[in-house]
Amino acid sequence: MSDALRKRIFEQLDALTIVDPHTHINPHAAASKTLADILGYHYYTELCHSAGMPKARIEEPGLDPKEKVGRLVEFLPTIENTIQYSWLIEAAQVFFGFQHERVTKDNWESLYDGALKKMSEPDWEQQVLKRSRLSGVFLTNDFDDPLTGFDTKFYVPCLRTDDLVFHLAKPEVRARLEKATGTSVTSPAALKTAIGQLFTHFVKNNVRACAISLPPDFAPTKVASPDAAFQEVFSKGLNACPDRRRELGNFVFWTLAEHCAEQRLPFDLMIGVNRAVYADGVFQGQDLYDSRVSLIQYRELLNAFPQVTFPISVLASVTNQELTSYSWIFPNVVTNGHWWYSNTPTYIEHDLAGRLEAVPRTKQIGYYSDMYKLEFALSKFAMYKRILAKVLCEKFVVDRGWSEERAVAFGTQVLKDNTKLVFGVG
Amino acid sequence: MSDALRKRIFEQLDALTIVDPHTHINPHAAASKTLADILGYHYYTELCHSAGMPKARIEEPGLDPKEKVGRLVEFLPTIENTIQYSWLIEAAQVFFGFQHERVTKDNWESLYDGALKKMSEPDWEQQVLKRSRLSGVFLTNDFDDPLTGFDTKFYVPCLRTDDLVFHLAKPEVRARLEKATGTSVTSPAALKTAIGQLFTHFVKNNVRACAISLPPDFAPTKVASPDAAFQEVFSKGLNACPDRRRELGNFVFWTLAEHCAEQRLPFDLMIGVNRAVYADGVFQGQDLYDSRVSLIQYRELLNAFPQVTFPISVLASVTNQELTSYSWIFPNVVTNGHWWYSNTPTYIEHDLAGRLEAVPRTKQIGYYSDMYKLEFALSKFAMYKRILAKVLCEKFVVDRGWSEERAVAFGTQVLKDNTKLVFGVG
Amino acid sequence: MSDALRKRIFEQLDALTIVDPHTHINPHAAASKTLADILGYHYYTELCHSAGMPKARIEEPGLDPKEKVGRLVEFLPTIENTIQYSWLIEAAQVFFGFQHERVTKDNWESLYDGALKKMSEPDWEQQVLKRSRLSGVFLTNDFDDPLTGFDTKFYVPCLRTDDLVFHLAKPEVRARLEKATGTSVTSPAALKTAIGQLFTHFVKNNVRACAISLPPDFAPTKVASPDAAFQEVFSKGLNACPDRRRELGNFVFWTLAEHCAEQRLPFDLMIGVNRAVYADGVFQGQDLYDSRVSLIQYRELLNAFPQVTFPISVLASVTNQELTSYSWIFPNVVTNGHWWYSNTPTYIEHDLAGRLEAVPRTKQIGYYSDMYKLEFALSKFAMYKRILAKVLCEKFVVDRGWSEERAVAFGTQVLKDNTKLVFGVG
Repeated sequence: MSDALRKRIFEQLDALTIVDPHTHINPHAAASKTLADILGYHYYTELCHSAGMPKARIEEPGLDPKEKVGRLVEFLPTIENTIQYSWLIEAAQVFFGFQHERVTKDNWESLYDGALKKMSEPDWEQQVLKRSRLSGVFLTNDFDDPLTGFDTKFYVPCLRTDDLVFHLAKPEVRARLEKATGTSVTSPAALKTAIGQLFTHFVKNNVRACAISLPPDFAPTKVASPDAAFQEVFSKGLNACPDRRRELGNFVFWTLAEHCAEQRLPFDLMIGVNRAVYADGVFQGQDLYDSRVSLIQYRELLNAFPQVTFPISVLASVTNQELTSYSWIFPNVVTNGHWWYSNTPTYIEHDLAGRLEAVPRTKQIGYYSDMYKLEFALSKFAMYKRILAKVLCEKFVVDRGWSEERAVAFGTQVLKDNTKLVFGVG
Repeated sequence: MSDALRKRIFEQLDALTIVDPHTHINPHAAASKTLADILGYHYYTELCHSAGMPKARIEEPGLDPKEKVGRLVEFLPTIENTIQYSWLIEAAQVFFGFQHERVTKDNWESLYDGALKKMSEPDWEQQVLKRSRLSGVFLTNDFDDPLTGFDTKFYVPCLRTDDLVFHLAKPEVRARLEKATGTSVTSPAALKTAIGQLFTHFVKNNVRACAISLPPDFAPTKVASPDAAFQEVFSKGLNACPDRRRELGNFVFWTLAEHCAEQRLPFDLMIGVNRAVYADGVFQGQDLYDSRVSLIQYRELLNAFPQVTFPISVLASVTNQELTSYSWIFPNVVTNGHWWYSNTPTYIEHDLAGRLEAVPRTKQIGYYSDMYKLEFALSKFAMYKRILAKVLCEKFVVDRGWSEERAVAFGTQVLKDNTKLVFGVG
Repeated sequence: MSDALRKRIFEQLDALTIVDPHTHINPHAAASKTLADILGYHYYTELCHSAGMPKARIEEPGLDPKEKVGRLVEFLPTIENTIQYSWLIEAAQVFFGFQHERVTKDNWESLYDGALKKMSEPDWEQQVLKRSRLSGVFLTNDFDDPLTGFDTKFYVPCLRTDDLVFHLAKPEVRARLEKATGTSVTSPAALKTAIGQLFTHFVKNNVRACAISLPPDFAPTKVASPDAAFQEVFSKGLNACPDRRRELGNFVFWTLAEHCAEQRLPFDLMIGVNRAVYADGVFQGQDLYDSRVSLIQYRELLNAFPQVTFPISVLASVTNQELTSYSWIFPNVVTNGHWWYSNTPTYIEHDLAGRLEAVPRTKQIGYYSDMYKLEFALSKFAMYKRILAKVLCEKFVVDRGWSEERAVAFGTQVLKDNTKLVFGVG
């Protein structure tokens, strides 16, 4: 009974056309050009490297795409147990008619060539979007992105602000800010104004969220007198003392929240990452975390901005209960997806179950793909939908006596309707 | 097989008459008078507020009970997924013959009126107790509660001590202490004596536990010389320096443990809550937590008082394994219920399973309702018993080959017998 | 379907002959001599003590083995729910033909006598090893162990280094070091050389790992100038200031890692234990932990020694996701077993599932028994294999559509093949 029910719930959820509320898609090159774009995803390069593949073989300058795939295939047997591997196989099966359950030295070339042929079709991007039932894709835009040359109704801009908060000490970041705003930033007030200009530019271009990823020790606070920190950072750059850099970062962060309030923009907080922990790791495969983080660090912020919605992602599953509880209490906290190291079935299932039963149904953004290339939405969302179907089946239909219809309606809200409610898109 | 087994185990556990070892019942008004007493439970007001209902609409002064219920009903659709909502529906079905699975704008008035009629019956309180199979209900009494006017054999006093440990800097608390004891508290020794008098008063009135809730950063320690802290707090009150207030709090806490030892009283520790994190939240809907807490903070206490039983509740599920391990090692640590933000099925199931397989069977208090009105014991305990039946079925009968009888006997011990063993009531 | 599948997967895994990669076996007395050796395991003494049995009754000097067992049996009913109790029953059933599901005052004597008879057979040790399908057993050897008088191909040495890192301030530890190396340790350089001699001695005797258990606050770092710390500790011993002791400990720890690099030896890190938290506990039943620990504390180490494999065990389940993530990113981090307080089914199941789906299949050491007497490998590994079969069945066959064969092959790798890959034994 229960297996069939899970399947039916999954199929109904899978039939929905949805918006992907957080990705790293480049709207000018959204789909893959070769299988190297797919196997070059950091999940595969970092796992193969972790299993023993030298970084130099993966990141050799000028490496031919086909040669790169061939090299990575050698190490795929060591990671075929991972859920990330299953994303690859499902994508290959759905998009390229791959018939096997493993990519091997014997079948990879025909997969590569077949994929190349499909990807070369002029409407490949549209084929992928249609097959993936996506009606919109959120981007991750640098603050100085011109936002031109693509349809912002479909590829929805999101203002990513890590550089402004954490890297303003770098001369090139300050230069980019001055160039993007056409201003000379000579005071905290000017900095505030410049950031306001960025918001104005983004709002004109259909931005639907401001976003930032944050290290575990970040604890935002309002800075009463930013002048000294501003002077230090803007004069000394990377030689500024760490405390002053942190202080200016806090000033910028608070300023972002103020502009979100003014522009009625949700502020996505992605909490918990330490950058470059494994210094010799592959590209995008160096970040880890310290799971000792608490949302109590955001107490002042959440109280200060009741009018700003904060969709929050946490990196470690051990923080998920706090996220659940804070969303249950604070009107302005929304649970947001299953991020990175928590984006594997065991953690999704536990974290999702905790949310579904304790957070108002209108305050849960179920999932985002976080993808860099369009071909991944389908299999990543499919993984999520299978788990969502499982939890709805077991925890709501079996344990609580809900009807199948009611379970599907709840799943639909979490997967689709709330993206409209929270971000106004969908 | 397994579904039928779960059901049979549940039914056998559900047939037991038990004692509820921790509630906030007012013995002078134990049952609800209108549905507003039920929907006014902070779980509903805080969840509706979190989903968007303005606090002012919930807490308007002089609000008519029926009008209050009508307003809350507008927001119930947003929280109908929550387990708290299921407590409401089950209570309405069992006690008021409610036939629906949702409370809506179309059916709430007849529910309200029907409930009012039932609640007006002179023996309503007894009806609820009988239907809920309760043979005793622990209270949460202020230290200056006269403990008169009710049957302390049924409504069992519990000395709650948060005010003494954390709020002695408030003049009104000191005034209450002096009034309750008829003494003038002019020294640490006098404070100790006054607290002793409170214990004597409670012991005369069938007290069965001392209890306190504690913030995550609390780490009790013996204070060798409390004089300076006493002078500072008793002379400056709320203007006393925080370190001195903490020191006096530690002195009082240690004194409580000493009196528990002397009076052979269990000391319930409820560990992990931060008060008023969401300052503008509804009544009782402002508290949250920092899950970074460890029982290592209680090392000195647990070693110093081997003769005192400490039934311990933890707020966050991530602390549950520590609780399990400390109960497995320390003879004086007992696991106690599933508290507040961990009182939802996903966390109960995981935490319960961890305890059942590693803590001596005599050292686990399965559940308490924490209720403010009698009508909630039935559905909260029913939730727990369903999960207990599930875990016993899956982890003991299926995975370990236990007989059904053995599983039910273990469940009975955790749910009922240990309340007698630990608190002497049941 | 799924129950039968679990059973089939278990049976195939259970048929494997394997190596136990971490135990505390004394190779000169590997098997038990009486049932007191089995019931004297700290899991039973500490649980019985926790349930109320006075320490003096357990640890009475000169206590007769049979009398000791008789006393412990009185308290066994209080712990019969624990998984540890199930290890005892399964061992009794398999090795001694015990027919009951409980050890009681009525049947314990015949069990004791029957066991004594079996244990007295001259080939008892070989019988146990054969029945347990063990082809090798790793030891835990003091740094000054002569490693003579046993077959190091079967009982594989492991250099345990807690004493060197944490107890060098004790005169007896320094004396043991000087005696074992025949040197006079008068400088950091001499200390380094002496430790190198220990490695040489162990390598000559087939050592396959260096190992250490570490407290939650340990954060290894390279010590540039160890001279002052060396002087302080070697002159003042236990009166040396804690900071200098910690500094010298760090110097020794780093030295161990250097020798592991040189000798190509894996370095087992067992992270998270606080020693003697319950000071009056029974022997080996005093240690607990603070779950607030992060692998970020090992960042410098993991980056500094890419050539050393670190099989890592964590004490608390809440640290398991970090372990999973660090193994997924760092080539030199391997997940290692389920340690101590996390060695119970609920935590194993959750932790194992997290690893199986995200860590390369070649980088997971499934389980070790941690046993002190040979009779425990069978039932402890059986527990693990049942859970492994369950997770493979539910998460891989049912949820991901794997074939049974593929699931068994993956289980075999985790349980058996990786011991060969990582430690070169199996």
